[in-house]
Amino acid sequence: MLERTYIDDVSAEDETTTIAGHVHDTRDLGGILFVMVRDRTGTMQAVFKEDREPELFAEAEELDRETVVQLGGEVSETDQAPGGVELVPTDLTVISEAKEAPTMEISKDVDADLSTRLDNRHLDVRTPETRAVFSLRSKAMEAMKQYFYDEEFEEVDTPALSTAGAEGGADLFPVVYYDKEAYLSQSPQLYKQLLVAAGFDRLFEVGHAFRAEEFATSRHVSEIAMFDVELGYIEDHHDVMDVQEESLRAAIEAVQENAQRELELLDADPVLPEEPFPRLTFDEALDILEEEFGHFPDDPTDLDTKGERLLGEHFAEQGHPAIFVVGYPEEKFYYKQGVEGDDVASRKFDLIYRGEELSSGGQREHDVDRLIEVMEEQGVNPENFEFYLDAFRYGAPPHGGYGLGIDRLIKGLADLDNVKEAILFPRDPDRLEP
Amino acid sequence: MLERTYIDDVSAEDETTTIAGHVHDTRDLGGILFVMVRDRTGTMQAVFKEDREPELFAEAEELDRETVVQLGGEVSETDQAPGGVELVPTDLTVISEAKEAPTMEISKDVDADLSTRLDNRHLDVRTPETRAVFSLRSKAMEAMKQYFYDEEFEEVDTPALSTAGAEGGADLFPVVYYDKEAYLSQSPQLYKQLLVAAGFDRLFEVGHAFRAEEFATSRHVSEIAMFDVELGYIEDHHDVMDVQEESLRAAIEAVQENAQRELELLDADPVLPEEPFPRLTFDEALDILEEEFGHFPDDPTDLDTKGERLLGEHFAEQGHPAIFVVGYPEEKFYYKQGVEGDDVASRKFDLIYRGEELSSGGQREHDVDRLIEVMEEQGVNPENFEFYLDAFRYGAPPHGGYGLGIDRLIKGLADLDNVKEAILFPRDPDRLEP
Repeated sequence: MLERTYIDDVSAEDETTTIAGHVHDTRDLGGILFVMVRDRTGTMQAVFKEDREPELFAEAEELDRETVVQLGGEVSETDQAPGGVELVPTDLTVISEAKEAPTMEISKDVDADLSTRLDNRHLDVRTPETRAVFSLRSKAMEAMKQYFYDEEFEEVDTPALSTAGAEGGADLFPVVYYDKEAYLSQSPQLYKQLLVAAGFDRLFEVGHAFRAEEFATSRHVSEIAMFDVELGYIEDHHDVMDVQEESLRAAIEAVQENAQRELELLDADPVLPEEPFPRLTFDEALDILEEEFGHFPDDPTDLDTKGERLLGEHFAEQGHPAIFVVGYPEEKFYYKQGVEGDDVASRKFDLIYRGEELSSGGQREHDVDRLIEVMEEQGVNPENFEFYLDAFRYGAPPHGGYGLGIDRLIKGLADLDNVKEAILFPRDPDRLEP
Repeated sequence: MLERTYIDDVSAEDETTTIAGHVHDTRDLGGILFVMVRDRTGTMQAVFKEDREPELFAEAEELDRETVVQLGGEVSETDQAPGGVELVPTDLTVISEAKEAPTMEISKDVDADLSTRLDNRHLDVRTPETRAVFSLRSKAMEAMKQYFYDEEFEEVDTPALSTAGAEGGADLFPVVYYDKEAYLSQSPQLYKQLLVAAGFDRLFEVGHAFRAEEFATSRHVSEIAMFDVELGYIEDHHDVMDVQEESLRAAIEAVQENAQRELELLDADPVLPEEPFPRLTFDEALDILEEEFGHFPDDPTDLDTKGERLLGEHFAEQGHPAIFVVGYPEEKFYYKQGVEGDDVASRKFDLIYRGEELSSGGQREHDVDRLIEVMEEQGVNPENFEFYLDAFRYGAPPHGGYGLGIDRLIKGLADLDNVKEAILFPRDPDRLEP
């Protein structure tokens, strides 16, 4: 490896150091040249003085922005530079010259619109703020996975390519698969359930889901990063919410602890939600919307975007950025519903974080006879779901799970306006590259 | 959560316990009934005696295989049962009844052919041996990721959907993407390089690659799990091999330590390769093949499957299950090649593990002028690669990386005959479900 110390690790106690990175910016004051060098951990100011090192000064004057350099020299304390230290170089090696000036601003405050930034993502990812989003994303995902490994969940890996999804529908992307037609997966849910039924017990999967929806909102994309969880031997949906709650708190705590630099750069402050998260029924949610906001969702069986936002605001004021809404009245057949003694119509829940739906989940129906009964009540033909039903014919523990939208989680944690900002190379109906 | 202790955690010191799982098998000796219960951690024998608990005995006699039960009772030491303990139940709860007998054998040695097993994967994953493969896979992947997190790599997430890959070609799966044509990704390499060029420095990605190849071998599938790595500020390809070597050793060590039960079930013994792995040049590899085996690959610029297998055997005998072959004479333009002073033609390497290619990687060409030069030498039109070239126009550190086939790695670690056994729901030209 080339010799270098990460800028973040250079301290005033070091006499000398060697750093390497991109030339982020230069400022020539006539006889004194400031070169800001950027690496993955931060930026550092290097000061070249013409009277002291005329040859080095001349070389440094030739440096273009984004050229990659290695700089060795003395570490000097200063109040004038970020981090409280600057470098007085004695060695300069040009590792890789920038052949062109960037076509987009990198070192100043970026006020390019999102579309321009995404078109030029190869330059946009060089800005410290954009890099901070993805550094934070990596740290949040590391913590989330660690939670599940620690809690004895196993990671599984299911395919993106399948025959028509059980639910079929217009939202699927067709694929030419040799001489057959395949579709891209919208969710690994059926696979997750099949595995838990078979005794996998506790599992999670990180993968992509593909939805051919025509939405053009700040919350939708066509290729979605999902964190899917499924667990067996539950009492009811509250056991599933417990897991989601604890794992989300673990991720937020890790971000607070390990991503301070990123949060500062992004001016974001993800509050650690207190436990337990409020768990309100759908009816209670409707009451709050009506009484506090005079808002009535168009569809009386579901919350709308505005309803989610208003509920989010209502509970955020009370110190609860995250809430569960439980027991929607009409649910897909695979959610357990109509259970005698239940105070909710279904054991489905949504997690609303910062006013946006972050995940859906619940307890599944694992009794194959009851499953067929609900299908028939809903006018769904069980014959189209043989693969699914078969998984439950041979003994399946009670189980549940959820799918969390990773991109939306990062949007929330980093306080971004649009979910596409949380994705390196987002895909939507109009965007298939870079 | 339902009350239960994992079978693995029950010890002779416990007076009583409660376990839960599938009925794996039953044996009725007339008056004495043995019920084997299986959970994710193992199987345990429960002994029902008619004379002692006639009602419980009658209930237990009704248990069908794969029914899910919860059993409470006394723990008793015995030499007759696996694990050295058995359960003398006082409580039996049927959690979920099996409605049908499995159409495939689960509790005996499975000698169904692979195709039948994969057709009935929902039953096949109930066999302890198959579950062991995926438990081992989860543990190996956990350790591999931990290595990279510890070494300050960041995890990234790039899209599966794109316009035609830079290399185009017949191996791509076309997707109907709204009103456009998209393709499924064959590799995240271009994205990885773009990000390292931009200063991401050290990154990895776990994702799927899609290859529309017509191969029907024990090593090929159409949807492949890949562990991709890329790092900047390298001296040369040896820095990349160092990372691959250390991370592979970390994964194997973790499997040896944490997956003993799985390895026993699978009768597998992944040897921890000594470091450093032998790094031989392509010419040295050819010499060994000729001198030791009289084998000459058809293509004088590449190793063939037989050549890889023979090299694997040759070095395995010397205690080296893993070797690098470096410096193939003809390589894709993106590998650094033709460097003055180099003793190899290109800085590309392959990792051969247990006689099979597990990954390809190397140092990339990061100088955009030289990149265009090599493209033109190879008859590749640089205009088709503007997106790629543009990433290197603005200063890019020297870098390299590799893509490791996770499925093949698990095949090697678990000593499986076919890579499809290492995949929950494999995809090949003839298999698109379940």
